[in-house]
Amino acid sequence: MPHPADSLLVRALHGERGTRPPVWFMRQAGRSLPEYRELRVGTRMLDACLTPDLAAEITLQPVRRHRVDAAVFFSDIVIPLRLAGIAVEIEPGRGPVFENPVRTAADVARVTAIDPDVVAANAAPVRDAVRLVASELAATGTPVIGFAGAPFTLAAYLVEGGPSKEHLRARAMMHADPAAWHRLAGWLAEVSRRFLTAQTEAGASAVQLFDSWAGSLSAADYRAFVAPHSRRALEGATVPAIHFGVGTAHLLTDMTLGGVAAGVGIDWRTPLDTAAGILGSGVTLQGNVDPALLQAPWPVLEAHVRDVVERGRAARAHIVNLGHGVPPEADPTVLTRIVEFVKELR
Amino acid sequence: MPHPADSLLVRALHGERGTRPPVWFMRQAGRSLPEYRELRVGTRMLDACLTPDLAAEITLQPVRRHRVDAAVFFSDIVIPLRLAGIAVEIEPGRGPVFENPVRTAADVARVTAIDPDVVAANAAPVRDAVRLVASELAATGTPVIGFAGAPFTLAAYLVEGGPSKEHLRARAMMHADPAAWHRLAGWLAEVSRRFLTAQTEAGASAVQLFDSWAGSLSAADYRAFVAPHSRRALEGATVPAIHFGVGTAHLLTDMTLGGVAAGVGIDWRTPLDTAAGILGSGVTLQGNVDPALLQAPWPVLEAHVRDVVERGRAARAHIVNLGHGVPPEADPTVLTRIVEFVKELR
Repeated sequence: MPHPADSLLVRALHGERGTRPPVWFMRQAGRSLPEYRELRVGTRMLDACLTPDLAAEITLQPVRRHRVDAAVFFSDIVIPLRLAGIAVEIEPGRGPVFENPVRTAADVARVTAIDPDVVAANAAPVRDAVRLVASELAATGTPVIGFAGAPFTLAAYLVEGGPSKEHLRARAMMHADPAAWHRLAGWLAEVSRRFLTAQTEAGASAVQLFDSWAGSLSAADYRAFVAPHSRRALEGATVPAIHFGVGTAHLLTDMTLGGVAAGVGIDWRTPLDTAAGILGSGVTLQGNVDPALLQAPWPVLEAHVRDVVERGRAARAHIVNLGHGVPPEADPTVLTRIVEFVKELR
Repeated sequence: MPHPADSLLVRALHGERGTRPPVWFMRQAGRSLPEYRELRVGTRMLDACLTPDLAAEITLQPVRRHRVDAAVFFSDIVIPLRLAGIAVEIEPGRGPVFENPVRTAADVARVTAIDPDVVAANAAPVRDAVRLVASELAATGTPVIGFAGAPFTLAAYLVEGGPSKEHLRARAMMHADPAAWHRLAGWLAEVSRRFLTAQTEAGASAVQLFDSWAGSLSAADYRAFVAPHSRRALEGATVPAIHFGVGTAHLLTDMTLGGVAAGVGIDWRTPLDTAAGILGSGVTLQGNVDPALLQAPWPVLEAHVRDVVERGRAARAHIVNLGHGVPPEADPTVLTRIVEFVKELR
């Protein structure tokens, strides 16, 4: 029986080039799929994430439909915070909203007093869901990618109390009260770590750390206030890790976290050959199909994907993906066509 | 009587270093000021922009309060589109919303059939407002900066029909229908040009082109689909121009528009000495105080502003400003304190 450790994805993360690059899509499970929208009727987002058979089924939908080379566990970056007992909901059309924003040193003390092990203790629904997915995929050896938010992106939501454009409050805390910042980010790193471990113990063959908002930081702030915590979230993982951000052209080297990340996500702004030139041969690249081009006629998109794959050859290995998540309004048949196209490449 | 052409700001744009750098703030006129919020009660945003005495008074408020080295004309990037007869409103808390998004080649044909000269013909309220401001400031020689949105940022709103995160539809049009894109962006360049000319004819001593969303583009797309139109919007201006974007670390050289921009805006992500190293001695830098630090205790903010000014010495000249607009929730007394601090520098 094929084993996930021998999959194109895991081998690519170990730096091996197969006959073709593996392909999957961030947010492949979710709103772009009619079967997902149908299944979610009547269930709130975070409840869906914590209902094992529902989360497993949602995770599997895009694997069945698109025949991608990996499942990515359907979850939300705030799930470990909810498992830690923090009051949070996803407001449709807005994003995660916290009942009590974490803005002062006292707020930070209140939150970080929670033992991160509580996350592991409460993670049974996560473990169960990943186990269901891994067992369902065992016949094909398709790997499951575990999922967690990085400390900065989590803190950006937590400090702001919800989504924000330039994450002013979290970035202000770094400078206004560095001790409180490091305490919060350090705690979040432990929480993300427990959440990833729950998934790898249940059968995830790789993990991805999402630092979606890292691009809002200067390199100096990233190095001083963020990188050590993201590194801690991934250190000691038993499977290879992908580290993802958007608008991080100025942070690419830092995002390898000193070699802890086996793969680094590249958005559509930086051509992969440029990224490979910067990052060298120690890391695998993932991305960088422009989500905007999902709306373009197929010949335009095909030429773009071909160009992405060709430039990706400059890296030690390349995992085809979008530069950011699948937009909710994307036409899923276009995603399937990209997978078919990549699978025909030699 | 002092003349605006001899002001620290205009001289800095010509590459001259005065005894200290000039200082002003993007969005200094607006929601951070209680006197603005009071004045705006009962008047819609775009109506306020087109009521000469109101727009003039709003433009002058921060000059009186903060004693900044320049007024920036209070307007909105969609004003020239309204002057062209396009139906648009500002929805509070959301941004500009267009009644008819411009998505197809037919939509583009409909919009670009409007003669850009209509903008000039309808710009009397803009000219009157700028004249009032310039006359009020004549005694001190404080310059007025004219204001316009760049073609890409305008197109991002127009194609999407409102604000969007990664401007997928506008970026898709570039590749899906390049002819329609260039027609639209070329028309927007002419519109921005007319709008800037109305302001310079009425007494603006410099202009700033806001391409707030340019950072969402790869350098290749920026060069092929955007730069020629932004350049066209500024070419032949009778006063020096500042070109502004956010998240543009990967586009800095392109944003000089081949020398057409006398100044380039730098956000908080790129240290000014790094930017000066990339851009050389042909351009003045503006920015890059981190808006997040407006929330930090004064000693932290003071050290940051001092560092910004010191790094700015690597450029031929530097205009102190934030890396993006004043956040609506900013404490205006902090902005005043920055001005006082910069004015004491030698």
